[in-house]
Amino acid sequence: MNETSTVPSSAPGPWQNVTVVGAGVIGASWTALFLAKGLAVTISDPAPDVAKQVRAQLDEAVPVLRELGLPTDGLDRKLRFEVNLEQAVANADVVQENGPERLDVKRDLFSRIEKAAPAGALLASSTSGIRVTDIAEALEHPGRLVIGHPFNPPHLVPLVEVVGGEQTDPETVRRAVDFYTALGKKPLVLRKEVPGFVANRLQSALFREAINLVVEGVVTEQELDDIVTSSIGLRWAVAGPFRSFHLGGGPGGLPAFFQHLGPALEAKWRDLGTPQLDDETVKLLSEQAHFGASFEELQTERDKAQIKVMRALGE
Amino acid sequence: MNETSTVPSSAPGPWQNVTVVGAGVIGASWTALFLAKGLAVTISDPAPDVAKQVRAQLDEAVPVLRELGLPTDGLDRKLRFEVNLEQAVANADVVQENGPERLDVKRDLFSRIEKAAPAGALLASSTSGIRVTDIAEALEHPGRLVIGHPFNPPHLVPLVEVVGGEQTDPETVRRAVDFYTALGKKPLVLRKEVPGFVANRLQSALFREAINLVVEGVVTEQELDDIVTSSIGLRWAVAGPFRSFHLGGGPGGLPAFFQHLGPALEAKWRDLGTPQLDDETVKLLSEQAHFGASFEELQTERDKAQIKVMRALGE
Repeated sequence: MNETSTVPSSAPGPWQNVTVVGAGVIGASWTALFLAKGLAVTISDPAPDVAKQVRAQLDEAVPVLRELGLPTDGLDRKLRFEVNLEQAVANADVVQENGPERLDVKRDLFSRIEKAAPAGALLASSTSGIRVTDIAEALEHPGRLVIGHPFNPPHLVPLVEVVGGEQTDPETVRRAVDFYTALGKKPLVLRKEVPGFVANRLQSALFREAINLVVEGVVTEQELDDIVTSSIGLRWAVAGPFRSFHLGGGPGGLPAFFQHLGPALEAKWRDLGTPQLDDETVKLLSEQAHFGASFEELQTERDKAQIKVMRALGE
Repeated sequence: MNETSTVPSSAPGPWQNVTVVGAGVIGASWTALFLAKGLAVTISDPAPDVAKQVRAQLDEAVPVLRELGLPTDGLDRKLRFEVNLEQAVANADVVQENGPERLDVKRDLFSRIEKAAPAGALLASSTSGIRVTDIAEALEHPGRLVIGHPFNPPHLVPLVEVVGGEQTDPETVRRAVDFYTALGKKPLVLRKEVPGFVANRLQSALFREAINLVVEGVVTEQELDDIVTSSIGLRWAVAGPFRSFHLGGGPGGLPAFFQHLGPALEAKWRDLGTPQLDDETVKLLSEQAHFGASFEELQTERDKAQIKVMRALGE
């Protein structure tokens, strides 16, 4: 770790210039990471206060980047803003798009980007809900487009889900993996397009039952969180669900687990709740949402603890 | 941490003698923890090779206990075996039952235990699937019985779900919490009996979607595990799902999250899979169950990593 070193003047590998299109929470977090890794970042966002917002978010990211061992001195030295999209991408090696989650907007953005960016630029969308195949229909060269969906915040959480569409060139997928790997991320390539990708689908499946248990009065939100952090959370930080059940099955592993416990598992599935987020439920869930500290304090606490875990695991 | 100190000759607080009824994987793991905490343990299990099995499991637990900073010298000094149940519990401060998961068996065990154990002994079952209310129907003093359900293995994972039944005395629940707390565990009291309790229900909800994604060919088991350990696993080790979505909602917190993203979440729920564990699916899931190392190696690796995480979080 080096808390005082200056941001490198050149980034590793072929990636030097990144254009961040759309600099809300996700775009600004990507920007923090790109800058700390020595990339030059051009932000294109029509919001009038974008520079102020981004700089405020960079300030917030600095302690996290430092804890991760990344240099933060001169972090914004290679940051510039260019509202004109065509000019912003003209010199890009990578375009990371984080615009509104609307198909028409993304189609419009990428059809303009592909015309103005260098032919070899990697074009990636951070979308969490739109199929790359659908966006790519608007492109002359749909093979160039790929999804690089981070888990929020991208400057901290390792995962990037990489998804190609029906027409995405396999080489584009490979280059996206190379790019995110060079940034120290953990890119995982999905084999099929599926709404919500993988991490969010898993998260929402667990959260549905979490809400059910709170609505049914089995536990409070705080109690449920405590149960997770003292059992399955600890476990899944080090071994995913398949590996965990593989070890839970005894020396016979996962095959024995399914053989002996499959029927019990199916019975559990039938018993899971299917809550509705009606007004009454949202009211109940909102009333319990007191976590004993301010938003900023909770966020700082979470990030610090997560960095400790990542360090302990050597990430 | 003290890797060479001897197991204390007396346990803290009013708990000195524990009887472990049923010493399979869970019972033997409880035994390892109880002994390392200075408790005298009497094991009652009719299996002819129980002493050999338990000692083998204690040997396996020693490196983990050491890493947790617990003393292991003279670990079995206060371990004894007594197959006669009545004699085994005659001097118990606590009875931790881990017998077969059958209601008739547990009723028989506890109706014998309550007659033979001291009137003040805490009577706890490790059951993961049977209601305490149903077991307690066989008792003269149903108020004495409580569930203390560990997350496997209990000598490592902090969580113990404590569940009282309709007739459980609140004082019994409080004493169970005191007992598990004195052992360094994290007891969480459920407010209602619910099949599978909380952690296993949440786990099975996520695992259902995990299986769905593998069956649908979106990812392999290994890829899904990697996605979990590099995103939601890391996150949930430090902040449970409610706290995480509270922070995911921006400064408006969980209320804003449900207001703005509730409908999208409900749409995700509708899209989750409902796989069946038929022969074909079990075959597919079993074929992918290659984790590149032996069962023992994987288990050691998992435990080591988990201890690192627990240390990092100061647990």
